[in-house]
Amino acid sequence: MAQRITPRSKNYSDWYVDIVLNAKLADYSPVKGTMVIRPRGYALWERMQSALDAMFKATGHENAYFPLLIPESFLKKEAEHVEGFAPECAVVTHGGGEELDEPLVIRPTSETIIWSMYKKWIQSYRDLPLLINQWANVVRWEKRTRLFLRTTEFLWQEGHTAHATEKEAREEALRMLEVYRTFAEEYMALPVYTGVKSESEKFAGAVDTYAIEAMMQDRKALQAGTSHFLGQNFAKAFDVTFQSQESTLEHVWATSWGVSTRLIGALIMAHSDDSGLVLPPKLAPTQVVVIPIFKNDTKDQVIEFTRRVHASLGKDLRTVIDEDDKNSPGWKFSEWEMVGVPVRVEIGPRDMERGQAVLVRRDTGEKSTVPVAEVAGRVHSLLDEIQTSLFRKAKAFQTECTHEVDTYEDMKRVLENEGGFVVAPWDGSPESEARVKEDTKATIRVLPFGNEEKAKGKTCAISGKPAKHIAVFAKSY
Amino acid sequence: MAQRITPRSKNYSDWYVDIVLNAKLADYSPVKGTMVIRPRGYALWERMQSALDAMFKATGHENAYFPLLIPESFLKKEAEHVEGFAPECAVVTHGGGEELDEPLVIRPTSETIIWSMYKKWIQSYRDLPLLINQWANVVRWEKRTRLFLRTTEFLWQEGHTAHATEKEAREEALRMLEVYRTFAEEYMALPVYTGVKSESEKFAGAVDTYAIEAMMQDRKALQAGTSHFLGQNFAKAFDVTFQSQESTLEHVWATSWGVSTRLIGALIMAHSDDSGLVLPPKLAPTQVVVIPIFKNDTKDQVIEFTRRVHASLGKDLRTVIDEDDKNSPGWKFSEWEMVGVPVRVEIGPRDMERGQAVLVRRDTGEKSTVPVAEVAGRVHSLLDEIQTSLFRKAKAFQTECTHEVDTYEDMKRVLENEGGFVVAPWDGSPESEARVKEDTKATIRVLPFGNEEKAKGKTCAISGKPAKHIAVFAKSY
Repeated sequence: MAQRITPRSKNYSDWYVDIVLNAKLADYSPVKGTMVIRPRGYALWERMQSALDAMFKATGHENAYFPLLIPESFLKKEAEHVEGFAPECAVVTHGGGEELDEPLVIRPTSETIIWSMYKKWIQSYRDLPLLINQWANVVRWEKRTRLFLRTTEFLWQEGHTAHATEKEAREEALRMLEVYRTFAEEYMALPVYTGVKSESEKFAGAVDTYAIEAMMQDRKALQAGTSHFLGQNFAKAFDVTFQSQESTLEHVWATSWGVSTRLIGALIMAHSDDSGLVLPPKLAPTQVVVIPIFKNDTKDQVIEFTRRVHASLGKDLRTVIDEDDKNSPGWKFSEWEMVGVPVRVEIGPRDMERGQAVLVRRDTGEKSTVPVAEVAGRVHSLLDEIQTSLFRKAKAFQTECTHEVDTYEDMKRVLENEGGFVVAPWDGSPESEARVKEDTKATIRVLPFGNEEKAKGKTCAISGKPAKHIAVFAKSY
Repeated sequence: MAQRITPRSKNYSDWYVDIVLNAKLADYSPVKGTMVIRPRGYALWERMQSALDAMFKATGHENAYFPLLIPESFLKKEAEHVEGFAPECAVVTHGGGEELDEPLVIRPTSETIIWSMYKKWIQSYRDLPLLINQWANVVRWEKRTRLFLRTTEFLWQEGHTAHATEKEAREEALRMLEVYRTFAEEYMALPVYTGVKSESEKFAGAVDTYAIEAMMQDRKALQAGTSHFLGQNFAKAFDVTFQSQESTLEHVWATSWGVSTRLIGALIMAHSDDSGLVLPPKLAPTQVVVIPIFKNDTKDQVIEFTRRVHASLGKDLRTVIDEDDKNSPGWKFSEWEMVGVPVRVEIGPRDMERGQAVLVRRDTGEKSTVPVAEVAGRVHSLLDEIQTSLFRKAKAFQTECTHEVDTYEDMKRVLENEGGFVVAPWDGSPESEARVKEDTKATIRVLPFGNEEKAKGKTCAISGKPAKHIAVFAKSY
C-alpha cells in the first residue's frame, strides 16, 4: 500500500496530496478550488471542533449563527476591510429568478454583518461584553488552491466580541490567542510561535493581528490561527455606541479570531510520514485498531479471543476491531497505518496460546508484547506517551529549524538552504520587509511578544539601520 | 414582562414572533428573508444536533462536507429536480472580480453535487451501502418568510445514502423516518403522523417522500422532517453504476433525508404559552434556574444557602443560579418563564429557616415545597414528569384535532371551523386533491402507511368515486 504515497524526500507536495487522497480525508470537487471533506477528514474536524468549542464555552463564549449573504455595501463601510476582501468575493447577483437590486457577497468573514446586528443589540455598558462565536463556512475566491490549506470555500469558527474598553478587548484577543496556542500544543501536538503580525501581514480592518505560527516538515511555516484586536474600526463603520457607566456615549471595542479546516492540513504536514497519516491520540477519530490474525483452522478461536481483548479496552477509548477475512494481515497493517490509527493491537494463534497481544505504535513502529490482562492499561499509557512524544519531536524540530542571524548574507543563505524560521533584528520598515520577500520569498511570520526590548542596541540585518524589532521570518504556506 | 407577548387568542402569528424576538431566539437580519439565530436559539439547535447526530451515528452514518456552490448545469441533470428548485436558487455570477464561465448556484439541497462525487467513489458492491450525512446551510429564495419556519437561508442536516438494491434503499428511507419520529416524540415531546406524500407534495426528484407531520396550537399542521426514496433517479442522472456480486453493472439506489432549524419553530408553536417559551427538559439549554430571594439584611445568608442547594443538583443537569441584585424576584420569574426554563427553584429567608425550597414547574405553574435534602431528587423526577406530560398533552391535542369525515360538506366545515387534521377517503386523483386545496387551502399532509387497505370499499369524500386512499388533510405551515 505504501507505494501509493510519494516519499517526502522525492516531492513533499505530492506526498501531501497523496496522503489526503489515499487516507480519504478529502477529494477534489467539480467546482474549481473547492473540495469535499470526506468522512475520515470530517471526523478529524469534529474532534477539533469539540475540543475548541469546549474551550470557547469555558471562556464565556456562546455560539450563534449569522447569514451567509452580506450586502455588498456593508463590506465597503470599513476602508481597509473592503480593500482586503473585495477582490476575493463571490457575488450573488440573481435570486428567485430575478436580478437583485443590490448584489450580495458570500461572507469571506463576518465582521460587517455581525456589527450591523451588534448595533441593534448594544445600547448600554450592561450589554457588554458580548462574546459570540460562530461555526460556519466562508468563501474566498483563490487562484491557487491546495486541499485543506487554501480552498475557495472552507469551514471555520469566527469569534466576534464587543467590549467597553480597549484594555478588555486587547485582553480578549490575547486570551483567545492563548486558547489557540493551548489547542495547537496540547491537542495537535504542534508547538507554535506566538506574536504580533507586521503591518503588511495583518488582517484587513484590524489594529493588531496576533497569530500562532507552526513549522511544517518541509521547513515552511504555517499560520495556524489568528486573533485580531479591531480597535473601534467596525464600531465606527457601523456606528455602534454604548452608554457608559458614566453616562457618556462611547464607541465599542472589538476583537475577532478564527481557526479553520486549514488546521487539518497543518496536522497532516506536522506529523505524518511516508507510510501515511500520523495522528495525535487526542484527535485521532480511531485511537486503537485490534487485528486478529488467523488462518481458516484458527479463525473462530482467534476472533473470539480477540473480541475479549477488544472488549477489555473499555468504552472510553475510540476503538475498532478489524475482523475482515478478505484482506491479509499485512494489507490491513498498511491500511491502518495509512489512516494514522495511533496504536495497533495484533493477536495471532500463538499469541492466543500464550495469552498475550502485540502492541504497535504508529509513530515509531515500536512493538511490544503484553499479557492480555495488561493490554488495556498499556494501551492507555501508550496513547499518552504518543501524544507527548509527538509534541516533543515537533518541538525539537521547531528548535532545530530556528536560526538566529545578524547579517543579510546569513539570512538569505539560511532561507535558501536550511529553510525554517530565521530570527533577525529588523528596523521596522516596510522597505526592509519587502526586500526580504523579493529576495527570498520569506515574510515576517510574527514579532514575538517583548521583542522590542531585545532589539535595543541591535542593527537591522537587512538595512544595517538601528533595529526596532526582533522578527521571525520564514517562507510559508 | 408578559405584556410584551401578544396573547395567542388575539393573534397567533404575532404571539409567535413576539416569543422568538423576546426570548432572543432569533432576530431579523438586514438581508431580506434571512435571520440571525441568536445564542439562545442556537443553543436549542445545538441540543437538537447533538441528539440527532448520535442517532445518525448509531444507525451507521458518517458526517462529511460537500461544497456550497453547485454548477448550474448539475441541477439540470435531473428533470423534476431542476423544475422544483431552479426558481428558488441564488446564483453566483462573479468570483474574484471576474464573471464566471458558468454560473454557480448556492445549494438549495445537495443531491446533485453529492451524486457527482458518488460517481467517483462507487465502483463495486463492496463500496455500498454508502451512508453519509452533512450538517450545512442551504439557500432557497423565498417570497414570504417567517422566522425559523421559512427563511431564505436555513441550517439543516441532509443524509444521502447509496444502496445496491431497491429494498435496502426503501428500508433506509423508512429507518430514517423512524429516527425522525423518535426524535420528535421523545426529545421534542411532539407527536407526529407518519406516512407517504402524495405525488403533488413529494420532493422534486423523489420516487416517494415519507414525512412526519405535527399539529401546532393554531390547528395548522407542520411538516417536521422528510425522508425520500429516490429510486435510481440521481444515479441515472449522474451515471452512477456499480458492479454487483453477480458481475452485472447496475445503477445505484438512493435515499435522502433532512430536518432543519424549522424544528425550532415547531418546538415553539407546539408547547409555548402566553408567558413565553415552554421547552421539553431534554432540549432545554438550561433545565433548572435557582433564584435566591433576599433583601439587603438577608442577602449574604440566603445566597450562601442557595448556592449549597444549587450545588446539590449536581453536574449532570444544566443549571443556572440567578444572584443578580438589580432586578426584583418577580422580574426574574417572568424572565425565566419567557425563556422556558422547565423548573424554577425559589429560596427566600423563610425557606432558608425551614430548610426548604419552592419548586415551580414552567409548563403548569404548579408549586411544591420540598426539604432541601430532597431538592435534587425531586428536580430530577420533575424534569422527567414535565417531558412526559408535555408529550401527553400534545398527544391529547393531536387526537382532539383529528377528525374523520366521509362527506365533502363535513370536510369543508371542519377545515373551516375546527381546523386540525381531517382524515378522509380519497380517490387518489390530482383533481380531487386540487379541489380541496382551492376550496379550503388544505393539502394532503400524509397518506398513512397501510391506508390503501382501509380505503377498500369506501367512497372518496370529494368526488364520490371509489376511494384508493385514506388521506390526512390539513392547512399547514
